[in-house]
Parts: sequence; structure tokens; C-alpha cells
Amino acid sequence: MKMVYSFGDSLEGESAVSLLGGKGATLAEMARMSFPVPPGFTIPTTVSLSYLKTGAFPESLEDEVRDEIKAIEEEVGSYFGDKENPLLLSVRSGAPISMPGMMDTILNLGLTLEGVEGLAKRSGSERFAWDAFRRFVQMYGDVVMGLRTVQGRDPFEEDLHAYKREVGAKEDTDLDGGQMKALALRFLEIASVAGKPIPMDPQEQLWGAIRAVFGSWENDRAQVYRRLNGISDRMGTAVNVQAMVFGNLGEDSGTGVAFTRDPSTGKNEVYGEFLVNAQGEDVVAGIRTPLPIKEMEKAFPEAHKELMDVCRRLERHYGDMQDVEFTIQRKKLWMLQSRKGKRSGFAAVRIAVEMEEEGALSAEEALLRIEPDQLEHLLQPVFDAGGKRQAIAEGRLLARGLPAGPGAATGRVVFSAREAEEWARRGQPVILVRPETSPDDIRGMAAARGILTARGGLTSHAALVGRQMGKVCVVGCSTADIDVEARTLSFGGRVLREGNFISLDGTVGQVLDGEIPTRSSEVLGVLLDGYLPATGSKVYQHYAKVMGWADKVRRLGVRTNADQPDQARKAVAFGAEGIGLCRTEHMFFGGDRIQLVREMILALCEVEREEALDKLEPLQRADFAAIFRTMSGRPVTVRLLDPPLHEFLPHSKKEVEQVARALGLRVAEVNKRIESLREENPMLGHRGCRLGIVNPGITRMQARAILAAAIEVQKEGIEVKPEIMVPLVGHASELSHQERVIREVANELFASEGMEVPYLVGTMIELPRAALTAGEIVEHAEFFSFGTNDLTQTTLGVSRDDSAGFLFPYLEAGIIPADPFASLDSTGVGELVKMGVDRGRAKRPDLKVGICGEHGGDPRSISFFHEVGMDYISCSPFRVPVARLAAAQAALKNRTP
Amino acid sequence: MKMVYSFGDSLEGESAVSLLGGKGATLAEMARMSFPVPPGFTIPTTVSLSYLKTGAFPESLEDEVRDEIKAIEEEVGSYFGDKENPLLLSVRSGAPISMPGMMDTILNLGLTLEGVEGLAKRSGSERFAWDAFRRFVQMYGDVVMGLRTVQGRDPFEEDLHAYKREVGAKEDTDLDGGQMKALALRFLEIASVAGKPIPMDPQEQLWGAIRAVFGSWENDRAQVYRRLNGISDRMGTAVNVQAMVFGNLGEDSGTGVAFTRDPSTGKNEVYGEFLVNAQGEDVVAGIRTPLPIKEMEKAFPEAHKELMDVCRRLERHYGDMQDVEFTIQRKKLWMLQSRKGKRSGFAAVRIAVEMEEEGALSAEEALLRIEPDQLEHLLQPVFDAGGKRQAIAEGRLLARGLPAGPGAATGRVVFSAREAEEWARRGQPVILVRPETSPDDIRGMAAARGILTARGGLTSHAALVGRQMGKVCVVGCSTADIDVEARTLSFGGRVLREGNFISLDGTVGQVLDGEIPTRSSEVLGVLLDGYLPATGSKVYQHYAKVMGWADKVRRLGVRTNADQPDQARKAVAFGAEGIGLCRTEHMFFGGDRIQLVREMILALCEVEREEALDKLEPLQRADFAAIFRTMSGRPVTVRLLDPPLHEFLPHSKKEVEQVARALGLRVAEVNKRIESLREENPMLGHRGCRLGIVNPGITRMQARAILAAAIEVQKEGIEVKPEIMVPLVGHASELSHQERVIREVANELFASEGMEVPYLVGTMIELPRAALTAGEIVEHAEFFSFGTNDLTQTTLGVSRDDSAGFLFPYLEAGIIPADPFASLDSTGVGELVKMGVDRGRAKRPDLKVGICGEHGGDPRSISFFHEVGMDYISCSPFRVPVARLAAAQAALKNRTP
Repeated sequence: MKMVYSFGDSLEGESAVSLLGGKGATLAEMARMSFPVPPGFTIPTTVSLSYLKTGAFPESLEDEVRDEIKAIEEEVGSYFGDKENPLLLSVRSGAPISMPGMMDTILNLGLTLEGVEGLAKRSGSERFAWDAFRRFVQMYGDVVMGLRTVQGRDPFEEDLHAYKREVGAKEDTDLDGGQMKALALRFLEIASVAGKPIPMDPQEQLWGAIRAVFGSWENDRAQVYRRLNGISDRMGTAVNVQAMVFGNLGEDSGTGVAFTRDPSTGKNEVYGEFLVNAQGEDVVAGIRTPLPIKEMEKAFPEAHKELMDVCRRLERHYGDMQDVEFTIQRKKLWMLQSRKGKRSGFAAVRIAVEMEEEGALSAEEALLRIEPDQLEHLLQPVFDAGGKRQAIAEGRLLARGLPAGPGAATGRVVFSAREAEEWARRGQPVILVRPETSPDDIRGMAAARGILTARGGLTSHAALVGRQMGKVCVVGCSTADIDVEARTLSFGGRVLREGNFISLDGTVGQVLDGEIPTRSSEVLGVLLDGYLPATGSKVYQHYAKVMGWADKVRRLGVRTNADQPDQARKAVAFGAEGIGLCRTEHMFFGGDRIQLVREMILALCEVEREEALDKLEPLQRADFAAIFRTMSGRPVTVRLLDPPLHEFLPHSKKEVEQVARALGLRVAEVNKRIESLREENPMLGHRGCRLGIVNPGITRMQARAILAAAIEVQKEGIEVKPEIMVPLVGHASELSHQERVIREVANELFASEGMEVPYLVGTMIELPRAALTAGEIVEHAEFFSFGTNDLTQTTLGVSRDDSAGFLFPYLEAGIIPADPFASLDSTGVGELVKMGVDRGRAKRPDLKVGICGEHGGDPRSISFFHEVGMDYISCSPFRVPVARLAAAQAALKNRTP
Repeated sequence: MKMVYSFGDSLEGESAVSLLGGKGATLAEMARMSFPVPPGFTIPTTVSLSYLKTGAFPESLEDEVRDEIKAIEEEVGSYFGDKENPLLLSVRSGAPISMPGMMDTILNLGLTLEGVEGLAKRSGSERFAWDAFRRFVQMYGDVVMGLRTVQGRDPFEEDLHAYKREVGAKEDTDLDGGQMKALALRFLEIASVAGKPIPMDPQEQLWGAIRAVFGSWENDRAQVYRRLNGISDRMGTAVNVQAMVFGNLGEDSGTGVAFTRDPSTGKNEVYGEFLVNAQGEDVVAGIRTPLPIKEMEKAFPEAHKELMDVCRRLERHYGDMQDVEFTIQRKKLWMLQSRKGKRSGFAAVRIAVEMEEEGALSAEEALLRIEPDQLEHLLQPVFDAGGKRQAIAEGRLLARGLPAGPGAATGRVVFSAREAEEWARRGQPVILVRPETSPDDIRGMAAARGILTARGGLTSHAALVGRQMGKVCVVGCSTADIDVEARTLSFGGRVLREGNFISLDGTVGQVLDGEIPTRSSEVLGVLLDGYLPATGSKVYQHYAKVMGWADKVRRLGVRTNADQPDQARKAVAFGAEGIGLCRTEHMFFGGDRIQLVREMILALCEVEREEALDKLEPLQRADFAAIFRTMSGRPVTVRLLDPPLHEFLPHSKKEVEQVARALGLRVAEVNKRIESLREENPMLGHRGCRLGIVNPGITRMQARAILAAAIEVQKEGIEVKPEIMVPLVGHASELSHQERVIREVANELFASEGMEVPYLVGTMIELPRAALTAGEIVEHAEFFSFGTNDLTQTTLGVSRDDSAGFLFPYLEAGIIPADPFASLDSTGVGELVKMGVDRGRAKRPDLKVGICGEHGGDPRSISFFHEVGMDYISCSPFRVPVARLAAAQAALKNRTP
């Protein structure tokens, strides 16, 4: 086993990263490309694993490290442990995957009380030398010796503040050389008094630091992080040891960071900042205002030219925009780090497209450079950046919640769906504020610009419906005290009343006081209104190009979940190829329908129930016809009535009286029936196909409304492809029952209308038993659509609505890696999904298989759905572009080489 | 293919039944044994299947039937279709499994308007002949021609009533020959007018009847029955054609039924009844009071002697008590039927034991003769038979519900748990009457003799807890109108108030007005009190013998679900080998504890919560110690707190105030916290190990209470085997978390006490995800206990509490074969159970695996648990003997030959 690798030793690709860690591999790579990298070496991950197992360093390690240090000494011309001319080193951890909790960095290692004098002499700056020394003591005391005050704070940081107060210095930079020396000596004293003296032997310093890096692989935070992210404990960490370079040696030195392209807009020019006479941490600390990278051209023309060249070559080499760190020591450029740069959605799209146009990437490579989630940024209205900055500066940031529906919205606070509709009717923008939302609130949500709730997670009703509607939505804002009765929304002392303005940033989850101006996104303008702003920006063209590439590559079809023609229209604009889930129950809340639905539910006898159903039928039929027209020949999957009936029941006394009057019943009798419909666990209650089996009239009415609408639209010359979906099937016999009812209705109708329409009958697979018995169920199903929301609820035994109390603590403690309602639990739920697909297809190889849970819009889940061989995914309209890209990436990643 | 089998053709065992049907096989067998069976033949099931497929009779069938009839004619000496001396036949269906909905019987087939005169002459009785003819017309018109009034009734039965009114006859027997003739002619007229004339050609009659039997295989009721009972449609039905014999030819003829032993007590003597000068249906109709079989000795000494001999030989041949039908025609005995006799639990046990003692059966064969469920009869107090008969005669039967807890109970009606306790404290027997019960009612249920609910099924809370407590329990009594506020219980007009007496028969599900005296069962007396009544009965000895056999044979261990020492004591008396499920939450309701539990839940800060837990700990510890003492060395599995916390919350204003006072909080604040704990779907909410993970203090307190109690009892010299069970685990990381907490507590405690106790840590497998990931979970579990109640709820997506609204319709429509909470859904839930066992054992071959859901007491489910290789089952105390027997039967049935 080779114990140590010099930067530049030849080693490439994945194995380099797993052996040398991310940082070590990059440094090695940059050295190999002859970029100016301070010399150094990496102790590979394999050594850390061996150390953690045996508790001892491998035999030959010390020898190899000594040889490597000798090589550095020769290159740099200073000597480790030398008193006159000491070689200073940095020691950094470097796991193959960047990981919080791991030991970070120790700088200036190798300095001793004697060496610091030599350094002062050679550098010509006492202040520089002692500053370097006190930094070393502070870092070493912190991360290697683990020094803490009884309150758990950094004792050195506390002493620094105390000392500055003593000497009347405001900033660190106000301290002169003598003061730095005094401070450094105090630091040494602190460590000694605590019984953890800082070693003054450079070798001891080095091995202590290496030991600390290895040990940090097993600290709690790192372990939790690995568990959460599914990272193997057997990966290990590397240690990078490197010669120090200094940007704080005077006006001919400096340090900075740069992106190879603008991370905000994607513009192809190096973007970054630098500071003269400073160390790297000073840039991050933000004490002095750094200068834009352009000005480096004047200050350090040679170094600037070299940096531009390095940036260009690094980007070309890695095939992606890079984020680099550099130092200029006495005018010479040194590269310290290069990694993939984080960017906005706008930048991601532009960079991908332009790199393809430049010939740096193929279209397929470019596709893989964009985070699918980021596409949503391009679709959302946005706050005017200046306006929001000003609001925050004015202290108007009220609270943070969960960012459930991206975008920006400003409006007047209202506390009920009805108020939302009323204010909206008066032309006022409203934000609907509720403790949580229910299907009752749907029309109010539709009328609002944004939705704010105090309870519920990212897949709560508010988040789900809000997202589908494309509403800005902040949920689970627990510091919001909402009093619906008193119509007040309080955050500590600040009390807002109905009609007051608030603003929601759904992209980050912020709630702000008052109005903030917004503007609509360019892509949305083009897609929905065909309007291209005259700003000369090419956001839409870039978006369209990426979508074009994605559609060429993906195998998965992409449909949408939509119940209303306008939702469907939006989804088609975003590229939906059909409707994967049309929930009929949302239609039940429109206008007077709810009254008819209530009559149907509360009718005492079959006859009255049928009367109510007869009145509902033409209304449903008109709804379906409108959707078929909008979707014009694209398949439309309509799910039969699913939720438990009591969701539709009257709440207020007035509503109860209304129903009693219509049915000719006493109010007490109606109340009794309402009570009898109450359920302990509605999610597992009398819902789904159980409704249609116990009351086949409901299924008959819905099937007739769907198929009559289809015939009506087909007569207009528009193609229709209805797919009737039976929900919550657990037994093949249930589907067989409902299929028979549907086909009977169809045959009657086709006979009486003298016209047929092509239609399919299929089912949701959303119960574990359905997945297990898919081989029986498929005998009655022409398609399966996995309802992964309910399948997750039942497989995990977790109610989405009630999960906040333990899911958040679970996520924090690393018990689960991700919210299972946001990203599919591929181990548990996923096994059932795979089983369902396989057992269904085994009996019916041409079975159409899709998924219509919220996971249909989640890139990680989409990759899973691709792998198990689904035909399509269905998601909310605004997620359609995301899904198209994610589907393309899944196809590329799973391509057999 | 042979089309027809004569009775007596050699053919044996299973294949005879599948080919000839149950009835045909028995007749053939009896003929083969030279018993006096009227000659006849069977058309086998294979022919019916071929007929149903092609719609035509196979070519050679008519010839073979003609030959068979010729053989009968020769033996009997009368001729089919002959006018002077007609041969009359019976035609009966005979499927391999007896099946409601199948065509039953046509008697006297072959009679025509001409033949009837010949029959009158030869029999010497005009009345006999015309009675036979009108019976034939009625049966043929009903079952072959399908004649019905517009109201769906039998038109002949209606006409018979009308005619009797016309002629002033009270009973059929009041009609003379002429009147019978007139009636018969009216019947023919009815059929003709309806367009379905009765054919007067004997051949046409015969083939019509055969066709009707074949067709009845596919009628709706038979199809539903088959679907419900998992009987293959491809089984088909046989047709039995047999010469008629007549018990109504005069005083030298008769008919009767007999059991080879007393079906009520099991006494070894032929038990039955007979009628002189009557036909079989007259015995069933109960018009005349039949005579006990003993008196046949005088009336028909020869026939009686022969019958006794036949009974003895049949029983010996079939190795089981038989139920036979016979006719005496002119002093000669004819055997018409023999089948396994239905019997009471008492009889079942006695017969099995005595047949073994007689050498007729081996002990293992005898074990298979007893329905396990019937053992419970031996344990329950019973109504005094005379007293109940009188009550019913007096019209005091108020309603029927579901028989949830067997036995008999009489007591005063009370409407709340508190009243139950108060009345009981005053020494009054009470029946707790509730719309449904909740954990709050537990102390009231314990105080009551019986429980009556209006809602809920056989596995509702009331049924579950009632059964575990051994309470008499009638649930889901939907005609009971319970007004808890007004304290009234109404059945139509009859209104009962608090303190009124009612009686419950939990064995059959009856509710009776007033008091009925009960007596306690003999077995119970011996097992619990060591008291053997001086009645000379051997019920207990028989019970003990059967249990001894069962214990020798079974492989499955049998434990019990018990939370209280007295329950545990009962269960041990019934043979429990340990506790498989001790629910700690029931202990939370005792005495002042609920107040402490409420303080714990509603405490705002960690400190107050820990204070409440500290107060609870000694109470829990005392509970556990008492149970460990009772179980004395047997393993005790204690489940950590499982239900959602809001089950323990205060309901009344007073209780809320109490908690607020204790915690020093405002009432409004407490109410707010109560509201925040409310859940949409508590079953899928914040419960199970989620409680102990979010609040590890709860787990710590419970683990300490369990282990400290174990140490305390071990110090007394009593062996202890605690097994700590973590509920509702879905992820291995959850169990790993809880295991760590438990082991830390154990190590601390063992160190401080200077003593260790052996203990195990394991988990419930009650979520689909737990079964799927059992291979990961098992790394932290020393045992698995399958919680099949919750596993059924989640796998099927059915809330037990809310299922009544659709499960009953589902059962009726044949959508599901059985209540999945009563008998395990072996296809769906069973596959997950099997997966859990296999994946667990694959990683840890010595894993102890049990089951503690309600299914642990269900014989069909027990057979499944045996097959998947579990180590033990656990059930409520009163089901322990049932489980022991069922486990033995499972072992016998699965024995590899």
C-alpha cells in the first residue's frame, strides 16, 4: 500500500477522488496540469481506515511523510522546524464527499516560539509572523486539542475580544506586532492552564493534526451526515498537507475567490473578488470590502492574466463552471482550490446552453449540468431585488417557514377562503393565512396570490394544492400565531389584521411585512402569453433549447396532475403530454355543487341519493368536457371519487339547515347522520373505491359523466382519450366490481349515443396489498398508476398531516435521510413499487404504468421511476419542466454503456 | 369417461368425493358396506363441467342413465313412467363441498296425472298418492321452473295457505285425499297460467331436473359462496338419482334423524327423533312432535336394531360422530344420508376423548375432531338453559349483535365507566352500555360483567379488550339506540334506564330484557379455583386430556396478552407459557396515574416532564414487579408506550383545570396544547417508538421501571425473563436509537444495583416497511413480534375502527372472504409476514419470532403462523386453550408424511 501521494502523481477519475478525497484529487489534478499549486502531498483514505481500525499509524507512513516533506523543503527553500527559515504547512481533511462535521483546516503548522522570530526576520514583519502564530495556536487549540469554555465556546475568540477591549482596538487589523505577540502568548497560556498545551515540536504538531483529521471521520456530526446521505462509513478521509503561501505579506500580495462564469446570470466572464494584503479567511469574514476581480488586472496584471487562463482551462477540463480560491504571494499566483460552482437556475440554464454552443459540452453533457429543481426558478414571479433588500434592511422580515411554493407574492392578509374570494372579487391581491388548509379552502386558495400556514409540511394540503396551482406558498411557519376568530396574525409583538399587506418569498420561505413589488418571469410570459420582453435577454430561448434536448433523450412520458382547464392549459404550455391525475373531488366544491354533494351523502334512501347524483352528473360532465377540449387528444386519467365523504359535509349550522331543508329532514336527524360519518382515521376509512362499491350509483354517475363528455367532445371533432382510474384498490375483487359497473355504463351509453370512444379502465396502486397482489389486480386493469403519497403513508404507517411532530426531529437526528413525502423512500416504498410493476407486467406485458403522487415531480424519485421501467410520471403543472429534465437525466445516467 | 356410477361401485376416499360429491360418495359408501340404501346412481361432477362448457349433455349419457334406471326398476319392481306401478325417483344435487344456493331436492319425480291413480291403487291411499303428486309439482315448479309471485314468493305455498283457509283446514294433515287432489290440480293450473307448465312426461321431468342441478352451480348465491370460501369454480356438482322410499305409507312406516352420540353432551348413545307415518320434511317442519329414538325399539324393533348397528358401524368407519337420516317403509329400514354431526364444544371434547379411549381413534386423530374455537364454550359461564328459554318465550329477546365475547352475563345497565365502577363498588352486577368504548373505559369494563356496544365489529376496542378480560361482550348492536346524556337504552319502544337489568349471551350475540340466572363453567372452576363440582361430570378431565395431547404435538409456543397480574394468573391456568404482549398503556389509566400521565404530556419544558416521569416510574415498576412474580420465570414481553398521547388527555373542563393547576399554567394554555396534539389519523400519527425517540425520557423511564422491577423480583429468588419490545418501528435506525437508550439504562442500573438480569430487546413488526426491511432491523433485534392488527390496517389501508361501513357490505358481496381483523389475510398481509420472518432469520438464524395481534387466537391464522415457522403465538387469556389446540392441529396437518 502506497501511504502518500505527491500532488501531481498520476491518478485519474473516480478512483482519485475515492483515494485522495475531493480536495486532494483537485490539487493533484491542478498540479498535473502544471498550474501553480503550492507543493504538498495527500495521505489517502485507505490510511485513515487502517488507522481507525488499529488505532495506530501504518509502519512506513512516517518515513514516507518525511520524504515528502523533504521534497517540499527542496522546492520551497525553507525547512520544516527550522528556526531561521521555517517551512509552514497547512493540514486539511479531504473526504471523497464534502461533509460537515469533519475537521477543517489548520494553517501555519510548523511554527514554534523560536521559529516565529525567524519568520518575522525573513518576512520583515513582526506583526505578520505573530499573527500567523496566534492563528496557528487558535486553530490547533480548537480543532486538535478541542479547547472549549464551560459554555462550549471558543476560548481564544473570547480572549481576542477581551484583549481588543483592553487595548481599545476595534478590529483585528488595529493590533500591531507587539500586541499580536502578547495575544499569541496569552493564547498559549490559555491552552496550558486548560491542561492541553499546544506542542512546540513541529513533528508533534503535524502528527497531532493528522490524528485529529482521522478521528473527525467518526465524530457525531459526520456520522449523522453520512447516515442521512447514505454515505458509507467505509469511505474514510484523506489528509492534505501543503506548503503555506501568504497573501498578507504586503501590498504585493493578496487573496481571492472567483467563479469562471457569473453564478447569478450565467454570463461568460470570470466573476469574483479579491483583497490586497490579506489571508483567505479575511475574504470570507467580510471585514474589508473586497474588490471586483476586474481590478486585479491593474494591481497584479501578470497574476490576473494567469488566473484568467487557469480559469478557462479548469472549466474546459472539468466541463463545468468552477469556483476557485487563489492567493498572490509577492505577485505570484498560487491556486489553492477548484470545485464545481453553485449557481442560480438562470445561470445553470445559460451556462449549459452556452457551453454547448461553445463546443465545450455535448447537449447530453450540458443536460446533466442543470439541477432539475432549479428550472422552477425560471417560471416564478420574482421580487424586485432592491425592494426586498430594502425591506429586510428596514427590519420587515417577520418569520421563516418552509418554502412550499416558489416565487414571490404580495397581498392583503385574509383569514378565510370566503374573505379571500371577496377581497379578490374587489380586485385586491390577497394572501390567505390559515392554521392549515383543507379542501374547503380550495376556492379561496385559487383566489389568493399566496398562502401562509402555521402548520403542515412540504407535502401538506396547502403545499400540495398550492404547488399544483402554482401559488406562492409558505407553510409550517410555527412562529406565526394565527387567531382566525379575532382575525389577527401575530409574530411576537407585531400584530397584523385583515387587509394589512404582507409579502411571501416562497422560494426561500420568508414572510415579510408590507408590500414588495414583484415582476413576472420571462419564461412564463412567453409560454403562457407568447410575450417576449424587449430586454434582449435570452432566458426563454435557453429554456426552450434545454427542454428540446431533454425531450429527445428521455424515455419517461411526462403528464400533469390537473383538475381545471386553466391548470391543464398551463401544464400543456410547460410540456405535459397528458393528464395523469384529474381529481374529481375538487370539482365537487365549485358553486352550488357542494350542496348537491351534501344531499347525496346525507340522503336516507337510494331514491333521494340517485336524485342528487342525477343533478350532479351534468355539472361533472361539463367539467370533463372542458378538460377534454383543452387536452385535445392527449390522454386524460380521471380518478373516481376518492376522499372520505365527511370531507364534504356541512360545518356551520346554516349549512346543516340548508341540507335538512333540501332533504325534508329534521336538523337533528342530519346531525346524527353527520356524526355517524365521523371517522377515527379517515385516511384508512370509508373512501376510495369503497365508496363506489358500497354506493355503485356514485361510480355509475361519474363513469357516465366522463364518457358522455368524451362523446360530446368527440362529436365536435376533437380526439379524446379518457382513462378511468379506480382509487384505493386492495383486492382484485374490488377492481373487478368497479370495472363491471364502468363497462356496463359505457356499453349502455355507446348503444344509446350510437357512438363509441376509446377508453381505458385502470387503477391506482396505493396500498401495500395492491402492490403485493398486482398480479391478480392486473387482470382487471389496463393501466396502473402508483399513488406514492398514500403508498408512503401506509407502508411507513405515517399520516402526512400528522407527521410534522416527529418527521422534523427524525430528520435532525438522522433517523431518516429525507422527508419520504418529498423524495420516495426507495428502500421500503420503492420495493413495493418495483414489486407492483414487475408482478403487473409479468401477467400483462403491455401494461401502461405511471405514477401520480407528489414524487412525480421530484428528480431523485423520477430517477427511480425510470429505473423500474415506468411509462410516465405525472406531476403538478409547474413541475412539468423539472420532470422533463429529470427524466432526461435519468435516461442518461442509466444508459447502458 | 364413465358417465354414471351406481351406488356401490367401488371408488374410495377423496377422489370419490370430488367425483361423486359429498352425498353421492356417502350413498355409494353405505351401499358398498351393504347398508340398506335405496338403489340409485350418481352422475359425476365431470359431466356437469362438460355440460356447463358445451351447453349439451355428453353423447352417451342418456343411454347410461337409461341402463341405470332399468337396474333400479329391476331391484325395486316398479317402472319409471308406468301408469299402474310407477317408479318414483328423487333427484338431488351433490357438490364435493356442501354449498348454499345449490338446487336442493326434487322428490317423487316420475309421477304423472295417470301414474298418480296407479300409485293410489297400489298404495291403497288416495291421499298418499295425491299428496306425493302435489309435493312433486310444488318442488319441480319451484326449483326447476323457477316459479315466483311478483313479490318473489313461492306461489304454491301461498295457494296452499289460501286453499286451507277456503276449506277450513288448519294443518296440511287436515286435508283428505280429495282435497289433496284438488290442491294438486290447482298447482298444475298455476304453473300453466304462468307459462311454465309442469311436464307430464317422466323423461322430460328427469332431464329438466338434471339440467336444473347443473345450472344451479352457476347461480349467484353459489358463486358468491365459492368466492367467499375460496372454492374453485372448476369443481362442479354431481347429481344423485335414487329410488324413493316412503315413510308415510301408514302406521308401519316412519322417518327420522339420529346422531350416533349426543351432540349436546357427547354421551355415547344414539340420539335422535322419529315420526310414524311421515315424510322426512315433516320432521324438519316440526308440525308434529317427534318421538325420541328410544321408543322406536317398541314400534319397529327390527328396524331399530338395524339402525343401532348401522350407526355404530358408520361412526367406526368414518372415525367421527355421524348425523344420519333414515326412513322406515313398511317396517324396513332405509338409510338416506350420513354426515359428520355438528356438536357443542362439550360434546366435541367428550366424543374425541371417549373415542380415543374406545380405541376408535388415536389421540392425534381425536385432536383433529375438535373445532378449536369450541373449547371456549367450556370456559364460559352459561345461562341456565330453562331460564333463557322462558325469557325468550316471554318475548324478552330485545336484539341481536355480534358475539364478541362468549358466555352469559346479567346485570344492571350503566352508561359510563365511572357509573360502572360505582355500581360495582356497591356490589351490583353491571352491564356497561356504550356507543363504543375507548381506553378511558377500561376500568369500567373491568368492573362490568358484560359489555354492550352499538358500534364496532368483532375486533373493535370493546371486543378486543372485553375478550382479553374474558368479559361477555356483544358489539355492533345497531338496533340499540343509546343516549348517554339521557341515560337511556332503547330498542324500538322498549326503553331501559340506568339500573334496569339486561342479560347478554355473548356466545350467540343476544340481548335480553331482565335477569337470567347464570352458572359458572366446570372447567373454569377447576382451573382457577381448584374446585371440582360433585356433579360427577368429567368435563374437566376430558379438557385436561385434550390439552395434554395438544401440548405433546404442537411446535408453536403459546403465550398470552395480559397487562394485569390477575389476567396473567388466568392465562397461566389456561396454559400460557409466557406473556407475549404486556401493554403498558393500560397501566397508565389506573388510579391517580392518569393525572401524572397528563402532566407528563402537557408539560412545557423538559424539567417538568421529567418530574412527572419520575413520579410515574415507581408506579410502573410496582406493576411490572407484580406481573413478573405472577409469571414466575416465564418470559414477559413488555411493549413500550404505543398509543398516541392524546388518548390520555383530559376531556372534561374539571380535568383540564386539574392539570393546569398541577403545572401552574393557564387553562387556555393547556387547551391550546391539547388542541396541538389533535391528529387527523392518530393510527398513523405520533405514536409507537416515535414517542420514545422524540422524548427519550419516556423510554428511559419505562426501561428503568421494567428492569428495576426485574431486579427486585430476582432478589426475592424468583426467576425473571423480561423482553423489552419497541413498537411501530419502520426503520432500522429507529430501533437502533431505542436499543441504545434501553441498553444505557440497563448498564447504569446493573452497575448501581450490583446485579444483572437477563433481558432481550426486540421489536414489533407491524408496518409494511418493517417487514420489507426486516433484514436491516434484525441487526438490532433479539426477537420479532408481529403486530398483525396494525400490519393489517396498514397493508390493507383499513382502519379497524372505521371499517364497519364497508367491511360488512364487502363480506356480503363476496369481495373479501373474511374479516381480515379476525382471520389473517394470508395473501397480502401473510406475504409480508413471511417476508419479515425469512429476511430476519436470514441474517440472524436464532431470531425468536412470535405474533401478538388478535390473530394469535384464530385457528386458521395459527395454522399460517405454524407454516411460516414462528416460535410462538400470543393471544388473550381465554383463547389460550384454543390456541394450544389449533397449534397442535397445525402441526398435525403440516406433518411431512
